[in-house]
Amino acid sequence: MDMQKVESNKYAYFEENTSAEIVNARMGSEASPRLREVMSSLVIHLHQAIKEVEPTHEEWKQAIQFLTDVGHICTDWRQEFILLSDILGVSTLVDSINNRRPTGATENTILGPFYVPNAPRYANGANICLDGKGEPLVVSGRVLNTAGEPIPGATIDVWQTNDDGFYDVQQKGVQPDWNLRGVFTADADGKYWYRSAKPHFYPIPDDGPVGKLLGVLGRHPNRAAHIHYIVTAPGYAPIVTHVFTPDCPYLDEDAVFGVKHSLIADFQKMEDENRAESLEFSCPFWSLNWDFVLASQG
Amino acid sequence: MDMQKVESNKYAYFEENTSAEIVNARMGSEASPRLREVMSSLVIHLHQAIKEVEPTHEEWKQAIQFLTDVGHICTDWRQEFILLSDILGVSTLVDSINNRRPTGATENTILGPFYVPNAPRYANGANICLDGKGEPLVVSGRVLNTAGEPIPGATIDVWQTNDDGFYDVQQKGVQPDWNLRGVFTADADGKYWYRSAKPHFYPIPDDGPVGKLLGVLGRHPNRAAHIHYIVTAPGYAPIVTHVFTPDCPYLDEDAVFGVKHSLIADFQKMEDENRAESLEFSCPFWSLNWDFVLASQG
Repeated sequence: MDMQKVESNKYAYFEENTSAEIVNARMGSEASPRLREVMSSLVIHLHQAIKEVEPTHEEWKQAIQFLTDVGHICTDWRQEFILLSDILGVSTLVDSINNRRPTGATENTILGPFYVPNAPRYANGANICLDGKGEPLVVSGRVLNTAGEPIPGATIDVWQTNDDGFYDVQQKGVQPDWNLRGVFTADADGKYWYRSAKPHFYPIPDDGPVGKLLGVLGRHPNRAAHIHYIVTAPGYAPIVTHVFTPDCPYLDEDAVFGVKHSLIADFQKMEDENRAESLEFSCPFWSLNWDFVLASQG
Repeated sequence: MDMQKVESNKYAYFEENTSAEIVNARMGSEASPRLREVMSSLVIHLHQAIKEVEPTHEEWKQAIQFLTDVGHICTDWRQEFILLSDILGVSTLVDSINNRRPTGATENTILGPFYVPNAPRYANGANICLDGKGEPLVVSGRVLNTAGEPIPGATIDVWQTNDDGFYDVQQKGVQPDWNLRGVFTADADGKYWYRSAKPHFYPIPDDGPVGKLLGVLGRHPNRAAHIHYIVTAPGYAPIVTHVFTPDCPYLDEDAVFGVKHSLIADFQKMEDENRAESLEFSCPFWSLNWDFVLASQG
């Protein structure tokens, strides 16, 4: 037995104290610098967490089984690992890291699974609530740059749930196609406006392993009520964002940590019969004034 | 809009700096103290790794897809998440944490997927190499306690690959049933001995996503050649361990980080024709003297 060989590589054999360094030392020259960076950090933090927690063999097996269950429920139309990323705040964190904006610019959020491209283009003022459900809402505002100047021609792509808490694509044949979706264009003063219905909170899919995890964590699956927007204009960084109602019971407890303080909007309840009539609304109705502020393309 | 409510909970809305605290603050009173401890640590370290790495959206999607692929290949007979745990050093780390031993006691290792209970019981000296392949090996030694005293009646359960690098259960119908497996009993002096063949290195399954990961990390899938043992005796902590050959080309690079320095054994090449004949071996053959040291049951 060649003891010299045995001693030659300090990271050859497993030791608890240096376990992460031992694993990372194994990477070969074929690993790209970026993969090396990513895996090193993941291995170090994973081993640190395990050393803090000291899982029993039974707990380790439970974790393996949980990940396996999450994998098994994934299909072309259901992505349970994204759900897991969502409820651990990872999706929002990754989005935030990749979309840091100058002060005053509208903050970004995750896109979410319910965006559909090529929604109908409408003139300002159109009503996108095609099922007639819910409390009427009129939204108006401007698209501005960080100097406060209007951005004429900016595109505002909007989508939201109906009053039952479902997107049209979740209820094909029940809701009209393209219900509560539309693309608007800011006018010469950067102004846009449209009619809709107040959005409703809704649960993320909670009949799988992620839903079970939420249960044992003492958490509910509900997303705070919101409207989704993508706002774009040439020369500016696109904004993907949510705007939240301030009175949703889940505002402080959004299941996927999508709520940012700056995105909670002042939805006002309106009792103005004349204005309701001119909007072809019942009364009372809701009014939201909301400006988007775009940063120049980095 | 009730701004007082909005300000009341400092962890209600997402912020990059305090993202992990925000996620952990969401756990409810239903979460058990242990689950709370485990999840808090995992969330803190996961968020730290993400903040270090700053993954792009594309990298995050790749990670989601990788985990999904790992989940999809898992079946009742293939556990790719355990393989992933293995190649990241997590399985060995968890095993080590749960099996810390007093100095001098034989170190533990992971059980591995190829253990089969209720192997044939043999008298000392039996030859468990039923396919006649490979270089003959005689193993002898003692089972002792940490005071150096023999443990008569200790049970030694052994299993290993054949010379082609396969366990019997991987080659049903090709290898004889129970090839290279057996259960021995230490005699009145704590001594055991048996005949076998020198074990061979072998790859972990590398035709799935974990194999692909090993590839891009510049790592090979091979396990260093080893013999598995479970050694038990009433009143002592059971030992699950490997014993490694010192001359395996993968000794310093075991794919699952199973090698511990103290478990590398002194396999000696023997040229003694008379001893070979008495063992019914061809010559040369290998000889291993190996003592197991059991700690008292904690």
